[in-house]
Amino acid sequence: MKFTKMHGLGNDFIVLENLKEDLTLTKEQITFLCDRKFGIGADGLIIINPSQIHHIKMSFYNSDGTEVEMCGNGIRCFAKYVYDNNIVRENPLYVETLAGLKITYLEIKEDVVTKVQVNMGAPIFECSKIPIDLNQKNALNERLSFNGQEISYAALSMGNPHVVIFVEDIENYPINEVGVFFENHPLFISKTNVNFVEIIDHDHIKVITWERGAGLTLACGTGACASATVGVLRGLISQRIRATLPGGDLHIEVKDDIYMTGEAIEVFNGKITL
Amino acid sequence: MKFTKMHGLGNDFIVLENLKEDLTLTKEQITFLCDRKFGIGADGLIIINPSQIHHIKMSFYNSDGTEVEMCGNGIRCFAKYVYDNNIVRENPLYVETLAGLKITYLEIKEDVVTKVQVNMGAPIFECSKIPIDLNQKNALNERLSFNGQEISYAALSMGNPHVVIFVEDIENYPINEVGVFFENHPLFISKTNVNFVEIIDHDHIKVITWERGAGLTLACGTGACASATVGVLRGLISQRIRATLPGGDLHIEVKDDIYMTGEAIEVFNGKITL
Repeated sequence: MKFTKMHGLGNDFIVLENLKEDLTLTKEQITFLCDRKFGIGADGLIIINPSQIHHIKMSFYNSDGTEVEMCGNGIRCFAKYVYDNNIVRENPLYVETLAGLKITYLEIKEDVVTKVQVNMGAPIFECSKIPIDLNQKNALNERLSFNGQEISYAALSMGNPHVVIFVEDIENYPINEVGVFFENHPLFISKTNVNFVEIIDHDHIKVITWERGAGLTLACGTGACASATVGVLRGLISQRIRATLPGGDLHIEVKDDIYMTGEAIEVFNGKITL
Repeated sequence: MKFTKMHGLGNDFIVLENLKEDLTLTKEQITFLCDRKFGIGADGLIIINPSQIHHIKMSFYNSDGTEVEMCGNGIRCFAKYVYDNNIVRENPLYVETLAGLKITYLEIKEDVVTKVQVNMGAPIFECSKIPIDLNQKNALNERLSFNGQEISYAALSMGNPHVVIFVEDIENYPINEVGVFFENHPLFISKTNVNFVEIIDHDHIKVITWERGAGLTLACGTGACASATVGVLRGLISQRIRATLPGGDLHIEVKDDIYMTGEAIEVFNGKITL
């Protein structure tokens, strides 16, 4: 079986073609392929399928073999692969996903896709939909006490729950401790991702995300979008900003919907026998 | 550049051919290739070179780009690759390494190498050569106090320093805490690997190794050899035993030298541009 290994800001994926719709993988096979010691190794697996309704269809699996709706870093890799390999030569590229239609805008240099912009949808502020266990409309200016200190935060959803905390000095902030505290706080019914944000200037933020169930990661796309959204709402940053994550830079534009632009990198091609 | 990804008990390697001696890799390139998110991902990188004095020559690099003398799991993959790819069709295969000649014995089924036996050399018991800071000849029956409990251990070297601790119930033993304590104890001048060993029966042990600088790993070949050596010296096990490690099984034979047999698995082939 042929495959391609790609990454977006270090969030890495195995990409497989299924244009003839003859590929079937069990959960165990996906887990094996994503295993970093015994298999190829990846955060997730992307399958390229034909679509009846849009240009092309993306299926996305986590490394444990469960299918999930969407992945912001993954869809950039997907779009680059589809265009660079002449599967569909459209720009914008309309992608069918379990989360509905995702329109991707391609930046192309010398006939190769270098960056991809994705409409990440609109943020959700209603407490019941985040979900956060507060009997009020939204939760954009809240406080929780941790180790005797008041921590200001905003809660919102980008399809998944996020907390945003602005900090003065991100390098020296106790991210792990505060991350664990918020992730597991009973207020957050489905747990929560926790974003720590330092404002560098009006057009540039640094974001480190504590992901629920995963801890520190190189790049959480929805976390960067949630962070930019809260920054704009508070008047701290402009609507078009650069977000520096541990894995690299994203560009975020906050309108009604949130638009996220970032790199997609092809690392290598391979062949494996299952 | 073409490469092959292989593993021995989950200890995984990138294997590269350099038969024309035209391959040069910088430390940065090796670090990139071994990076699990941005590169191919591996514990180490193996280069197959021609040898002037033996059948073939192995160069071995850790994932941080430093060249090291030898790797027990790595040389099995090396030998399988060399035989299966018709580079040298000799059995035993004489391999030149920075640690001198290593003779590998191949188990071949249907013209493919399935297992490889490696002479891992003789254990070293002299305190000054382990090294352990004790003014005595050897350190095969020592004790250290940890959290108010006396822990019996043996110290020896298999080219690298090892402590061996026999435990009743390996699943419920505080391996991390005791591992950290021994690794960093001032007695061990170059720090030490720490092996926790449960005797299943006279012919079978379970070994979990806390590796210095790396913590828990799937399979430490020299650790299994050190563990079997101490088990035989104490009359607890026979000279030919099976050692079950987290990554799989090794067979160890304790003579003057220690012989270790285990699987080598080819996972996939790939092409990457540097």
